[in-house]
Amino acid sequence: MSTFAPVVILVEPQLAENIGMTARAMANFGLSELRLVAPKNGWPKKGVREAASGAVHVLDGAQLYATVSEAIADLQFVLATTARERGQMKRVYAPDAAMDEVAARSDGGQRVGILFGRERVGLSNDEVSLADAIVTFPVTEEFPSLNLAQAVLLVSYEWRRAAGLARQRFEGAMTAQPASREAVLGLFESLETALGAAGFYPPHKRLGIIRNMRDRLHRMALTEQDVRTFRGALRALTRGPRQLRSDNVEVSSPPAARSDGEDH
Amino acid sequence: MSTFAPVVILVEPQLAENIGMTARAMANFGLSELRLVAPKNGWPKKGVREAASGAVHVLDGAQLYATVSEAIADLQFVLATTARERGQMKRVYAPDAAMDEVAARSDGGQRVGILFGRERVGLSNDEVSLADAIVTFPVTEEFPSLNLAQAVLLVSYEWRRAAGLARQRFEGAMTAQPASREAVLGLFESLETALGAAGFYPPHKRLGIIRNMRDRLHRMALTEQDVRTFRGALRALTRGPRQLRSDNVEVSSPPAARSDGEDH
Repeated sequence: MSTFAPVVILVEPQLAENIGMTARAMANFGLSELRLVAPKNGWPKKGVREAASGAVHVLDGAQLYATVSEAIADLQFVLATTARERGQMKRVYAPDAAMDEVAARSDGGQRVGILFGRERVGLSNDEVSLADAIVTFPVTEEFPSLNLAQAVLLVSYEWRRAAGLARQRFEGAMTAQPASREAVLGLFESLETALGAAGFYPPHKRLGIIRNMRDRLHRMALTEQDVRTFRGALRALTRGPRQLRSDNVEVSSPPAARSDGEDH
Repeated sequence: MSTFAPVVILVEPQLAENIGMTARAMANFGLSELRLVAPKNGWPKKGVREAASGAVHVLDGAQLYATVSEAIADLQFVLATTARERGQMKRVYAPDAAMDEVAARSDGGQRVGILFGRERVGLSNDEVSLADAIVTFPVTEEFPSLNLAQAVLLVSYEWRRAAGLARQRFEGAMTAQPASREAVLGLFESLETALGAAGFYPPHKRLGIIRNMRDRLHRMALTEQDVRTFRGALRALTRGPRQLRSDNVEVSSPPAARSDGEDH
């Protein structure tokens, strides 16, 4: 699928750190084609592989060009990233809208590239004029200076989302089922009996306090394991100090946990 | 408004570069409160201000803590960022959904913090267990290792969006109005007359070729200035070589441009 990811083109990048971090950010989100236009102080740069932190396949595949025109010659749609208005009558996209456009064009078989300018001065107006449209970042007025690799990261992140590839790597979801109402009501009953026996509430306030307690427990969205653990804890509290019994210690693996579930 | 932005908490960060870049990323998107839990090899670190690239107000305001518990004591909702599943029954958010939740809670007056772990090993399971929920990033399976400051950047970017503050700093919009249909039709007529006189098409193909040419010109969504420039260029092409006349050179300021608009 990275065949259809956009090409990242750095124009006269200077710092090894930024080029390495660019490669890493691209690899994080599934981009792989990096082009470098006339890197300042030569190429390859010392320290660039360390900064890439393992994304060396992106660095090793990087292509060198002398000019922006050459670097974009085979592309069909080109975006220029810039922090400043250029007085050019071009469409200006936010990163999310830009990557929606890129993903749609890639789906249609077009080759797309994104130009990123020099660390200090960005792209020249001439270079911007070679692009079809502009991408700019919704940074604050007070501190708009975005690092080069950070700009590449945001574009890469939004491309992955727009391409429909941004799946969460794991789910938070309930790994256990919610407890049956029978189990929950059983816990309520045990708790209410224990609190009554302990003199926790005067009889005339019993109902109100019990309802509030039920509300609190419901807010936890209890699982079967939760109910077992709380009933075990309640038994331990009401019977007073005693030797630790290994079958009362909560463990997360279901078979051992079940040994604590003698109330069911 | 940064009063309501979430607190960024780095747990045992090691590299000055990452802490500085974190401050910069926060400032880019309007976050300002940074907390450091037991930075490795002491604090302040050499090179951290350079890496912050001007976001020194974030660094200067950074608070130091000995433990995660102390760093989150005054907060009401805490998120833990992690790349790995922890077997904890917690809600897991993508960055955008997480920041929607954070923005909603901040609107309700809650103080929210986001925990970021050590460069190499992230947060411990114990530290994750202090958080209400988890944030994870939709990175690739092949290269999931996200730089610390890059993770802070993505969360900051998504917070600014969720808080409704992510306005584009300039619009691409048409800075000039579209040309009137009269002006466009006038250009078509001049072009068709000139092409006819130049023998560009055989008479029986005239209509088809003219219609295609009109289509192409419509695709440009011409402005009044575009029409004036193209009519000027057409006149220059049809009258043959001549001395350069200063009033035929396109300039972008409207009064000078108007001197080229003698056809209107």
